[in-house]
Amino acid sequence: MRILKEPSGEPNYPLLHPIEEDLACVERILSQEIDSQAQLICQVASYVLQSKGKRIRPALLLLSARLCGYRDGLRHIRLASIGEYLHAATLIHDDIIDDSDMRRGRPSANSRWGNGLSVLVGDYLYSQSVKHLIEDEDLEVMRAFTDATLRMVEGEVMQQEMTGKVDISYEDYLKMITHKTAFLFSACCRVGAIISEATPDRAEALTRFGLNLGVAFQIMDDALDFVADEGKLGKPVGKDLAEGRITFPLIYILEKGSRPDQELLRRHTPGRRLQERQVAEILFLVKKYQAVDWARGIAQDYVEKAKAHLSIFPPSEPKGGLLGLADYILVRDR
Amino acid sequence: MRILKEPSGEPNYPLLHPIEEDLACVERILSQEIDSQAQLICQVASYVLQSKGKRIRPALLLLSARLCGYRDGLRHIRLASIGEYLHAATLIHDDIIDDSDMRRGRPSANSRWGNGLSVLVGDYLYSQSVKHLIEDEDLEVMRAFTDATLRMVEGEVMQQEMTGKVDISYEDYLKMITHKTAFLFSACCRVGAIISEATPDRAEALTRFGLNLGVAFQIMDDALDFVADEGKLGKPVGKDLAEGRITFPLIYILEKGSRPDQELLRRHTPGRRLQERQVAEILFLVKKYQAVDWARGIAQDYVEKAKAHLSIFPPSEPKGGLLGLADYILVRDR
Repeated sequence: MRILKEPSGEPNYPLLHPIEEDLACVERILSQEIDSQAQLICQVASYVLQSKGKRIRPALLLLSARLCGYRDGLRHIRLASIGEYLHAATLIHDDIIDDSDMRRGRPSANSRWGNGLSVLVGDYLYSQSVKHLIEDEDLEVMRAFTDATLRMVEGEVMQQEMTGKVDISYEDYLKMITHKTAFLFSACCRVGAIISEATPDRAEALTRFGLNLGVAFQIMDDALDFVADEGKLGKPVGKDLAEGRITFPLIYILEKGSRPDQELLRRHTPGRRLQERQVAEILFLVKKYQAVDWARGIAQDYVEKAKAHLSIFPPSEPKGGLLGLADYILVRDR
Repeated sequence: MRILKEPSGEPNYPLLHPIEEDLACVERILSQEIDSQAQLICQVASYVLQSKGKRIRPALLLLSARLCGYRDGLRHIRLASIGEYLHAATLIHDDIIDDSDMRRGRPSANSRWGNGLSVLVGDYLYSQSVKHLIEDEDLEVMRAFTDATLRMVEGEVMQQEMTGKVDISYEDYLKMITHKTAFLFSACCRVGAIISEATPDRAEALTRFGLNLGVAFQIMDDALDFVADEGKLGKPVGKDLAEGRITFPLIYILEKGSRPDQELLRRHTPGRRLQERQVAEILFLVKKYQAVDWARGIAQDYVEKAKAHLSIFPPSEPKGGLLGLADYILVRDR
């Protein structure tokens, strides 16, 4: 399990033990199931789906299902794969929007096949997900995933609207990442509960767990942009920054930094496509103010809130898995 | 009704009389219903939806429903709007893929707001359609529209695969346009039948009517690329050609033309971005071989096939509307 590979020195949680086989099935589906009339779709979609991600969304769905007593059938596997399909569809379109060259340590689909085909493969993955959802025939499941998808798109648009602007409030940033990331995390947890016929309070607890976890995840993901090792992250350091995106560490400096440092930041950030030297100056400020640690602190608060929602569940292996996954989000380095 | 505005000298069919009010309701929905958290989505989506198209897909759904005895409620209006939403979503993404500057006589969304936002607004319209479909709660309707969407994407990819190639067979071209256009026409007709609880043979007849009509429509649409008046078509003449796309009139010349003319065509077409002089030479060949009339002849065959499928229905106003719409496809000039 790739997700188990903690940075050396970190404990190696047996997080995913209860869903190890399930995840292997999801992986098989992701590597096989693209079967289209159009050859090129199969090729590009397989390329994207097989670039190993962390598979956090499927893991959330599977663990939530197991936590709520899911036992038989293959629905959980199919729906977990849909969680990853939906995620992959947005990744492809994101890379077009950001004009990104790299994704998960390899050339992005758009840099390899061009924007046109990438738009279409994203569309195809999304349509395919909807098709599978309809085959599943559960309106509540459909609603959970479809609402999340609409929110994701809205989050992406909010991000576009914020790009190149300096005066982003904490609230605006939080709203944007909640839409962009947290609603799908939340939907995956909720769907796990729905297919296990969990009681409404349990379904609600998992929904809120996922939402808070998603916020924490994205705060950390954005903060890692300032510190991560390019080889591990699979994309260049300071990428968001170079694209004119203000995230938590910078919002912090813009509020708490000395006047000259605030001014330096204001001078550099509003434009897209910063030069290397300017990126270096900002990275220096981020270190000086320990802004990444500050962001990690906020993420930790969200992780704690998330975990608190699971208090209604008695201890179990799947519960341990979800709690461990929540902690993992704070220590991961890619 | 814009659709009634025939070129002068043509008869002015009362095609849409039985659905005039319904279409006006659809128009109101299209002009109002975008209600998103993200301001920019509302702005761009409204721009695209309000650029008056021919609304053929909604008209097909409404006429099919009325033909099968649909009476009460608003489902037909809502579903007809979804037909147009799905179409609009593909138009936006198409324009990105083709790098088109104009659509329906106005700047395209991508030329006005950039590719990034246009990708997202297409995604939003599609997700919104799916959300409305789920609210409608009819699995058969969902399946019809979702299958059509997947096929549309496949058709677009086939078109991408063919771009810049000369040796396109009639069969490949037909398969591509069937996916790209005809399946959605067909789905609209089928959905009209489904919501009216039509008998299976009536639903099937309408499904086939729509499929043949869609093929005829796209053959004509592609042929109009060689002859239409830019002001009426809303996009430059010879656009497909300039983008390296072989359509029926050229396939015809490549098969039936003199050797030197075939060679001229082969020399010019495989590359994208033809020069004006080269486009003019090809337009001359198209005239010389009356290739557009030939394409119109094939389209007419499909229209006749389409109409034959309606023979199981007794005469009625909605039937007259569908038959008239089929004929309109052959005489329209935009």
